[in-house]
Amino acid sequence: MRKKSKYNVAVVGVGAVGVEMLRALRQRQFPVRDLKVLARSARAIEVDGASYQVEVTAPEAFEGIDIALFAGTEGEKGAAVTYAAEAVKRGALVIDNGADFRLEPDVPLVVPEVNPKDAKRALKGRGIIANPNCSTIQMVVALAPVHRLFKIKKVVVATYQAASGAGSKAAQELFDQTRSVLDGRAAVPQALDQRIAFNLFPHIGGFGEAAYTSEEWKMVKETHKILHDPKIKISATSVRVPVKTGHGEAVYIECRRPVDIDAVRKAFTEAPGVVVIDDPASSRYPMPVDAEGRDEVFIGRIRKDPSDEKALWLWVVADNLRKGAATNAVQIAELFVKR
Amino acid sequence: MRKKSKYNVAVVGVGAVGVEMLRALRQRQFPVRDLKVLARSARAIEVDGASYQVEVTAPEAFEGIDIALFAGTEGEKGAAVTYAAEAVKRGALVIDNGADFRLEPDVPLVVPEVNPKDAKRALKGRGIIANPNCSTIQMVVALAPVHRLFKIKKVVVATYQAASGAGSKAAQELFDQTRSVLDGRAAVPQALDQRIAFNLFPHIGGFGEAAYTSEEWKMVKETHKILHDPKIKISATSVRVPVKTGHGEAVYIECRRPVDIDAVRKAFTEAPGVVVIDDPASSRYPMPVDAEGRDEVFIGRIRKDPSDEKALWLWVVADNLRKGAATNAVQIAELFVKR
Repeated sequence: MRKKSKYNVAVVGVGAVGVEMLRALRQRQFPVRDLKVLARSARAIEVDGASYQVEVTAPEAFEGIDIALFAGTEGEKGAAVTYAAEAVKRGALVIDNGADFRLEPDVPLVVPEVNPKDAKRALKGRGIIANPNCSTIQMVVALAPVHRLFKIKKVVVATYQAASGAGSKAAQELFDQTRSVLDGRAAVPQALDQRIAFNLFPHIGGFGEAAYTSEEWKMVKETHKILHDPKIKISATSVRVPVKTGHGEAVYIECRRPVDIDAVRKAFTEAPGVVVIDDPASSRYPMPVDAEGRDEVFIGRIRKDPSDEKALWLWVVADNLRKGAATNAVQIAELFVKR
Repeated sequence: MRKKSKYNVAVVGVGAVGVEMLRALRQRQFPVRDLKVLARSARAIEVDGASYQVEVTAPEAFEGIDIALFAGTEGEKGAAVTYAAEAVKRGALVIDNGADFRLEPDVPLVVPEVNPKDAKRALKGRGIIANPNCSTIQMVVALAPVHRLFKIKKVVVATYQAASGAGSKAAQELFDQTRSVLDGRAAVPQALDQRIAFNLFPHIGGFGEAAYTSEEWKMVKETHKILHDPKIKISATSVRVPVKTGHGEAVYIECRRPVDIDAVRKAFTEAPGVVVIDDPASSRYPMPVDAEGRDEVFIGRIRKDPSDEKALWLWVVADNLRKGAATNAVQIAELFVKR
């Protein structure tokens, strides 16, 4: 992609992630010349007081586009399956938040704080860069400094995933259903698999190989690809919780070498995109309501396992729509713009 | 304690757990002759349509009592610290749900499905039996069959703990605060450490040694005592979630021998007090809303770690006020009554 002072950008999809992409482009002052917003149907939308005219996605819509950000969809094939190649053919760099291309060998899977160099490979390959899954992104940002210091052998992670990870309808369902329950009415799940009001359930995505969900496998396979180390043993339990936005993760890490927890803490303090919130005496640790609307990954409860000198725990929280999706995608685009 | 056809029972405390003790005694048809309800202040209360006259706790109140169930309190010393010895002196067997005596060597810590024989030691010792912490109880019920089969080496657990675990005020706060947030008003934490409406936080109990919370240490030390095996490495992250009642636990277990997952499943099917709900294809797994009001421990998501033949995951849910507190205490009393 040629260096320019400003770029023609397309955002494909205006669901929870697409809207955050529009926000992230504006808030991060991405050098946009023309912005095109594409979706299945034409309409006008408003985001934070700004109006956008949504056009229907079509191959020709990518004419003249430099960077196409695909928001992806939950649980079905994203628009990138149909349109990514069309956009690339017309000269666009595609950054896809959907799951369709993430594990393909000629598509880099990128978290800019972790493996920025991989992004450049897209220009020689398919022209597509994949954005990892929300729960993977925040975890690898936390794992990378630990892996560099003490070589990670095993990761055991339990997630606390917000409703908005399943789309804006699911986020609305959390609120509407909660009000129903408070008013003594029935809780009827529609966008989510189960009742979410004052409830939680270990089911995100579909059930697959070895009785793990697709969400749990994403955390394994995407992390292997991003860290370039398929030997790390990773195992996850993913749980949907009654929070609107902001995923939490209890991450237990076994290293190959004894852990110096002060060195870990120092590494996080210096790591780009990481904010350490870890002052238990003052009841300070990351929480979803504090992470919402923020671009960073928040890490706290940093502590060694008293029964294993090579193991530690981290509590990792990030806004699943921003760092977990839109922000990361825009950051990938920034890799091609800056310097 | 002499065998009788009916027993004089005292329940001390009428908070969330005390009320469930009254319920459990009635629902389980415990052979009660006279029931005395004690608390800090005298008053009349109603539980499920039945009226109880609450008397003020005092040493003499235990005169003639055969079994005294202390409900315990959150975050402060329980009434058992003051009155357990007085009750024992007057001939009562004390079963204490509080945390004060749990780790004392001459006080058995009992989960009837796991270590019922330990209960008998109370009669030769202090006359006190301690009820474990809610999050410990449901975990050890799940661990015990696995430990018998494949010898557990390490347990890594992340909890999803309901508001009612912090008492009835905290449960009410969840509802009131959630309504406030839905109505656009502020969320002001009072009974809990942080905002609980649509939020969660890794802070249960106080912070102590090695930056672990008291709740996290309870899961380590109580499990060691109940399973009679302090060599098992146990490490926990405890998280409060916006659920009223019903704790969830993502439990990762490393064994000394390779795991036969069908044998684990069979053992759970046969284990007393366990209900297996594990049919992912039909979206069936344990959830807090289904466990509420039930006496059993619900286990699902039973699966091996594909990257480690000696490791498995369990998803464990139980009603923290019932099996996690009141039911377990009444079951301990039943050990002395039955057969």
